[in-house]
Amino acid sequence: MISVVIIGAGNVATHLYRAFKAAENISVIQWYNRNLDTLKPYAKEVEIVNDLSALKEADLYLLAVSDDAIKSLTNKLPFENRLVAHTSGSVGIYDIDKKHKRGVFYPLQSFSKAAKLDFANVPICIEALESKDYHVLKNLAISIGSPTKKVNTDQRRVLHLAAVFVNNFTNQLYRVAHEITESEGAEFDLLKPLILETAKKVQDLSPYKAQTGPAKRNDKKTMRKHLKLLNETPHHKAIYELLTESIQRTHGRKKL
Amino acid sequence: MISVVIIGAGNVATHLYRAFKAAENISVIQWYNRNLDTLKPYAKEVEIVNDLSALKEADLYLLAVSDDAIKSLTNKLPFENRLVAHTSGSVGIYDIDKKHKRGVFYPLQSFSKAAKLDFANVPICIEALESKDYHVLKNLAISIGSPTKKVNTDQRRVLHLAAVFVNNFTNQLYRVAHEITESEGAEFDLLKPLILETAKKVQDLSPYKAQTGPAKRNDKKTMRKHLKLLNETPHHKAIYELLTESIQRTHGRKKL
Repeated sequence: MISVVIIGAGNVATHLYRAFKAAENISVIQWYNRNLDTLKPYAKEVEIVNDLSALKEADLYLLAVSDDAIKSLTNKLPFENRLVAHTSGSVGIYDIDKKHKRGVFYPLQSFSKAAKLDFANVPICIEALESKDYHVLKNLAISIGSPTKKVNTDQRRVLHLAAVFVNNFTNQLYRVAHEITESEGAEFDLLKPLILETAKKVQDLSPYKAQTGPAKRNDKKTMRKHLKLLNETPHHKAIYELLTESIQRTHGRKKL
Repeated sequence: MISVVIIGAGNVATHLYRAFKAAENISVIQWYNRNLDTLKPYAKEVEIVNDLSALKEADLYLLAVSDDAIKSLTNKLPFENRLVAHTSGSVGIYDIDKKHKRGVFYPLQSFSKAAKLDFANVPICIEALESKDYHVLKNLAISIGSPTKKVNTDQRRVLHLAAVFVNNFTNQLYRVAHEITESEGAEFDLLKPLILETAKKVQDLSPYKAQTGPAKRNDKKTMRKHLKLLNETPHHKAIYELLTESIQRTHGRKKL
């Protein structure tokens, strides 16, 4: 049995809380948040607290709080030599106050409030300074059915950055596609199977091998047609030009 | 029963051929290609030809050839007043020689050689000048299990352009993420569940509502960290800056 105190009440904290509660060998002994109101709906099933001095002894104190709060919050924790881990992609392990045993438990996935999440699809990137602590964090991840990977701070930082490319930036390309189709009253819905297929393709094939289209085959006529359609939306045109150039750089084609 | 002559032997032609063969009420009576060698593997199951003058009468002549070949090829067809449709996203319906009944049968999906394709996931965008011809093309699509949509030439052109954004450009963002992770020896594989989740999310939610991340919430500290990591790869940095700006434009945030 792993005993855990969760600190924070955002999306990541809430999803982790639910997964921990559903796991057989994890006991959430307290859930802390500065503002207790957010936690009130859970008061019947877990002890909720907003006073750091009331924290009980646990195998792990898991901080799912904003990046900026990690350093000072770990400093304020009124105990030492216990395992304290944060869940951030971009904060270093040494930002945790050195009076603690330190770790990182970074779930590499997009968390939204409503959607249910299957933790089998959430790789957990784990970092710890001591082997014993690493195994506590790894067992925690395994207990909620997540794949795990040992990842150091530098690797975690580039994963966090890469996640912005495949999640936020990709989603923005969907948004631009939405604007482009609506400009002629065409249905964005027609693109949804292609969106899914594009994501599925790279599950088995490298993005390099999966690439197709006018930029890769240097089909200048089609690219000219596309650029003409974008003449009145220069910010869409700039994205078209930059990503076309990027594809041609990757695939050794000449520039536009 | 709809009788079809397929013209062309690329990926689209081959996938359509297989789907037509498997459909109960479609008869592929001939398959034409200038170079007959490409079609040889199919010679036992369908009549293959490389001579336009040998084409038999059919309900539909479906051209799955390169965009540039459509106009002249339809002009060379040695008959008139029969239904001739192309499968291109960016070529107008009037590029088909006017001696024919004209149509467009544009499958909005990415076709690769190897991967099997379920046509239930391939929306067919249909255009025709006569209602009767429209219904032939629509029945053809329904017979292979595809959803259909009436789409005019302008709408088809923006769909084709938008497809480049959600397919080729998105795939290039995956590629950039691959390069970024590899730079620190981190595993691109860890991003695959996130890639899939991002694509799934917009199946039910608009890309606007699905957006998250540092650009949307104007988290300058995280963005500065990311830009610093990209200092040595200016072409990746340029993509980061442009797509961040695009997200902030969409969500009414200030520029970086």
